[in-house]
Amino acid sequence: MREIPGIPYRFNDPALLSLALSHRSVGPHNNERLEFLGDSVLGFVVAGRLYELRPEVDEGDLSRLRTRVVRGTTLAELANKLKLGDHVRLGEGELKSGGHKRNSILADTLEAIFGAIFLDGGFEECARVVRHVCDPVINSLPDASELKDPKTRLQEWLQGQGHSRPEYVLVSETGPAHKKRFIVQCVAQTIGIAVNGEGSSRQKAEQAAAADALVEIAGRQE
Amino acid sequence: MREIPGIPYRFNDPALLSLALSHRSVGPHNNERLEFLGDSVLGFVVAGRLYELRPEVDEGDLSRLRTRVVRGTTLAELANKLKLGDHVRLGEGELKSGGHKRNSILADTLEAIFGAIFLDGGFEECARVVRHVCDPVINSLPDASELKDPKTRLQEWLQGQGHSRPEYVLVSETGPAHKKRFIVQCVAQTIGIAVNGEGSSRQKAEQAAAADALVEIAGRQE
Repeated sequence: MREIPGIPYRFNDPALLSLALSHRSVGPHNNERLEFLGDSVLGFVVAGRLYELRPEVDEGDLSRLRTRVVRGTTLAELANKLKLGDHVRLGEGELKSGGHKRNSILADTLEAIFGAIFLDGGFEECARVVRHVCDPVINSLPDASELKDPKTRLQEWLQGQGHSRPEYVLVSETGPAHKKRFIVQCVAQTIGIAVNGEGSSRQKAEQAAAADALVEIAGRQE
Repeated sequence: MREIPGIPYRFNDPALLSLALSHRSVGPHNNERLEFLGDSVLGFVVAGRLYELRPEVDEGDLSRLRTRVVRGTTLAELANKLKLGDHVRLGEGELKSGGHKRNSILADTLEAIFGAIFLDGGFEECARVVRHVCDPVINSLPDASELKDPKTRLQEWLQGQGHSRPEYVLVSETGPAHKKRFIVQCVAQTIGIAVNGEGSSRQKAEQAAAADALVEIAGRQE
């Protein structure tokens, strides 16, 4: 096999495509090294594309936008659209695995295919294919500001209004080491906000509290 | 200016080189977006180089080897060798900053220069320059196995000897939130090892304990 329907590239060396389709469950001759290479060429091509398409966006937002494109869930969607599941080679034990694991295998396989195209046809060919596959996602990305995490959005909103930064106070930390629960209070004193957030880490609890603070602020403005 | 001594590339557009040399302290027209792009092309070129040079190494070790090349301390050393400090443009407030901060500025500037070369001359030119600058580091990388973290090395050694995995037990967690100290005990029961490690996070304390366990094992074998 030299081609996969939906991926506009014909391999000179069919063994490379075959390797890219071989999950580690088939044995030592598998696609994990190609996945390392493909992950990296994908990250770079998407970075270049976003740099070009979003001249107004700063590096933090470029990075968040890129994550949206190259994260596992997005790649799994793309891989499913390409029906990579019809082509991937799995070992005995993996044949029946479904759901999440299957999606992560397909996402990895897509990266491995990009790595194989780079080795087989060079950078420009690989970049052309990555753009073909990823541009629909890149073109439908939201505005960069929508991608910021709640703590960042809250702080930017407060500072834009001339208020000081919010404070995060640890209220409680409970549960055994492997199953901790944190409660954090987000305090924006000058606008009279003090809401609690809960999470499995302090950081997650802070983000949850900031998200609730944003909801409260939005409610007041209606 | 179109060139920097030691970097074998002549810019078609000198404004791109100038932008790459402009730290964010000079104002909104700075090198941060170029740094995002450069970080990513650097990561990819080094990945490709390691893929090629280390055919026997698995993807986890490839990734660890790459980190050695692209991490801040390595890039700062390269930037210092190239005397980038003579060319970087800083704002008033930054002129006097020294030491660690200066090194991180120089490392970021080197990445921004790689990004600028990609935009100015295309991928192949950029890859050639990255290889020229980074190959001395790549060629002096240790064997992949030496790069593994102590926990991984300890576990692999124990399993290779037919022993079970080590356990890590939290002994104490002290100090205020921003300055915690963790003490963890690493226990490898079947070979009678129980050593403590200390660190600013649980993970660091575990690594420190594993490192001491490895030292103890090495001592016994002498």
